[in-house]
Amino acid sequence: MNSPLKVAVLGCGSVGSQVVRLLQEQSDDLAARIGAPIELAGVAVRRLDAPREVELPDELLTTDAIGLVTRGDIDLVVEVIGGIEPARSLILAALENGASVVTANKALLAEDGPTLYEAADKAGRDLYFEAAVAGAIPILRPLRESLAGDKVTRVLGIVNGTTNFILDKMDTSGAGFADALSEAQDLGYAEADPTADVEGFDAAAKAAILASLAFHTRVTAADVYREGISEVTAADVASARDMGSVVKLLAICELRDGAVSARVHPAMIPASHPLASVRGAYNAVFVESEAAGQLMFYGPGAGGSPTASAVLGDLVTVARNKLAGTRGAGESAYAARELLPMGETVTSYHVQLDVDDRAGVLAAVANAFADQGVSIQTVRQEGRGADAQLVVVSHPATDAALAATVDHLRNMDIVRDVTSVMRVEGAE
Amino acid sequence: MNSPLKVAVLGCGSVGSQVVRLLQEQSDDLAARIGAPIELAGVAVRRLDAPREVELPDELLTTDAIGLVTRGDIDLVVEVIGGIEPARSLILAALENGASVVTANKALLAEDGPTLYEAADKAGRDLYFEAAVAGAIPILRPLRESLAGDKVTRVLGIVNGTTNFILDKMDTSGAGFADALSEAQDLGYAEADPTADVEGFDAAAKAAILASLAFHTRVTAADVYREGISEVTAADVASARDMGSVVKLLAICELRDGAVSARVHPAMIPASHPLASVRGAYNAVFVESEAAGQLMFYGPGAGGSPTASAVLGDLVTVARNKLAGTRGAGESAYAARELLPMGETVTSYHVQLDVDDRAGVLAAVANAFADQGVSIQTVRQEGRGADAQLVVVSHPATDAALAATVDHLRNMDIVRDVTSVMRVEGAE
Repeated sequence: MNSPLKVAVLGCGSVGSQVVRLLQEQSDDLAARIGAPIELAGVAVRRLDAPREVELPDELLTTDAIGLVTRGDIDLVVEVIGGIEPARSLILAALENGASVVTANKALLAEDGPTLYEAADKAGRDLYFEAAVAGAIPILRPLRESLAGDKVTRVLGIVNGTTNFILDKMDTSGAGFADALSEAQDLGYAEADPTADVEGFDAAAKAAILASLAFHTRVTAADVYREGISEVTAADVASARDMGSVVKLLAICELRDGAVSARVHPAMIPASHPLASVRGAYNAVFVESEAAGQLMFYGPGAGGSPTASAVLGDLVTVARNKLAGTRGAGESAYAARELLPMGETVTSYHVQLDVDDRAGVLAAVANAFADQGVSIQTVRQEGRGADAQLVVVSHPATDAALAATVDHLRNMDIVRDVTSVMRVEGAE
Repeated sequence: MNSPLKVAVLGCGSVGSQVVRLLQEQSDDLAARIGAPIELAGVAVRRLDAPREVELPDELLTTDAIGLVTRGDIDLVVEVIGGIEPARSLILAALENGASVVTANKALLAEDGPTLYEAADKAGRDLYFEAAVAGAIPILRPLRESLAGDKVTRVLGIVNGTTNFILDKMDTSGAGFADALSEAQDLGYAEADPTADVEGFDAAAKAAILASLAFHTRVTAADVYREGISEVTAADVASARDMGSVVKLLAICELRDGAVSARVHPAMIPASHPLASVRGAYNAVFVESEAAGQLMFYGPGAGGSPTASAVLGDLVTVARNKLAGTRGAGESAYAARELLPMGETVTSYHVQLDVDDRAGVLAAVANAFADQGVSIQTVRQEGRGADAQLVVVSHPATDAALAATVDHLRNMDIVRDVTSVMRVEGAE
């Protein structure tokens, strides 16, 4: 057995405390799997006297995070503080000081990943971050390694548990967004300020990371088109159900003619799609590739213990690499692909309209689609008189043409109201 | 860029031809991802003039497989011949000659894996085999690496597409086993001799590999308890449906008090279980671990192109390792666990009985369970007179106690027939 590897853990909140717990409880197994014991050398916290979910000797706790990562004997650093600073400075200092780093920091990776990747390359150290996307679900490693001989063409992910819980609740109970959000907050699935989740910022960060890995290029959170779920209504959800679909907030990464479309928005997907049955706060990532076909990875997308499982998996790998004097595959951005603007992205729309109940309405609406070069897949006419409705599902077209069509519909005399507009995914 | 790595492909059937195609079509991407070009140095085939799904220069083809792997300049060997010999000798020769090996050979790994692992260790070379279980689905790498910091407690796998197709067909159409098998054969999902699939031999090999990796111990195919699906009747499937379940052939690997239960048998699982919606010839592996919770990996479990995707993913990894002068994690069997005999395995039974329609029948049946120390979870009484039926679902008990209960029921005067006996999984 080799001499122990020293690990510093930065942050001891819900994830950090579980990382520490697993390091303690699984120490024999970890040593057997790595080939050397892991020694917890220090835990950086904001306040020494804060209550914690794990028992720790006082001498391991410090408020001096930078002192911990630069003290000279740290082999491995786990960063589970989150946010941009001081996490970035700490990771950079850790790499410069010869440590390999495992992080769960999606926001930092999506905003400034290349700075970190380059620092890891320069230092010849590992930077692993499986826990940054979809919690416990192994998805980054499969994309980076298992599918490295294949050509990934599309990734559809339910990568935010809060919004999936809310949409699932709306679907099963008929509740509106506000009520479902309120229940999610009561149950601890949503924060008091739910913006990062419900407006899709969290999912967009994950989409950027997924697109970068899937397509071997650089995509940042700012490159990701983003719509949240706060505008999704009970009527949208009911309308989806009427056509045998469910509404999900999807992180979508697609390759089209060599360019990358990366976007986050609510979409209707058929109930038969494997993602449709992902319930509650669970996450799942659906991957399409040329040779493998359709794969799906499913599991808990958040939570201290699941996220810690992903962190520890990475820790075992970087520890093995450290012992072997090597490192894993670093950033792979050789393809340097262009980004497709949202308007040029090809999608389908589901549009529900309150219309006047008279002859010629269907023709006029059909013309509004045709004028933008959008062809119609199905039209359903429902109700009579003041309740007359049209439900139109388009064939795939550019998002710009579809948006222009909807704008035009809103201004037509015979259209009393556009009651639901939503993109449709996963239907082919 | 480094100088090319030379790869020999052994076998050019449905998988081998797709491996060769991907090597040709993706060569630029593979070179960028590996850091060196991959040069196809030779393809060993049985007959030089056989029709092939891929175009190959004549000079690359050889019938001298052992000559190819021992010629001295081969860096990487892909073995997709299948079966025990000559595959084993070829892999051993390749390792001895300094090549790293990627194989899809589940039968060989499940029968004699340790011999191969030891040869790889001795040679200091990689032996990777993601394609051996569940085709394109990345499952072995997640078990070996992503979950290396966690404690896997159970693996439930639908790992044989042929039997899943047949059971799905029986479920959706009400067909009996023979008709569903016949359709599977017509569609190319089942072989003319379907024994290896329908009797669970294929799934048992995969269960052995999954159990070995999940629990860090050695499990061979001979250690796996095995029942196939040829005795599953339309009545079993209908009975499952009546209780909101479906019948699946499961590969089950469980840790119980530190010992391993590895088994393959048909089981009823609730329709709400993520595995229940795995349709047709798709595969999925459901993993339970202490920290991560419940994960599922889903995708195509067979086919030339999906299997080749898994082979190529491994090839990229072992090529990177070769370039870095290192190797990936080898066999991890440090836990050296005991195997639990089937009789001591804890399961639940679903039992359906034709019974006499008279007072005291339910009490007598309940006593038969109680006599073996088995407690009953639910009893449903159906029909009257000559159609009187009891459907009993037990609480978990040892398989031996449950089997003894069924034996006893079969001999009771008031029991006219035991019409369906099946284990129940995934219910807790």
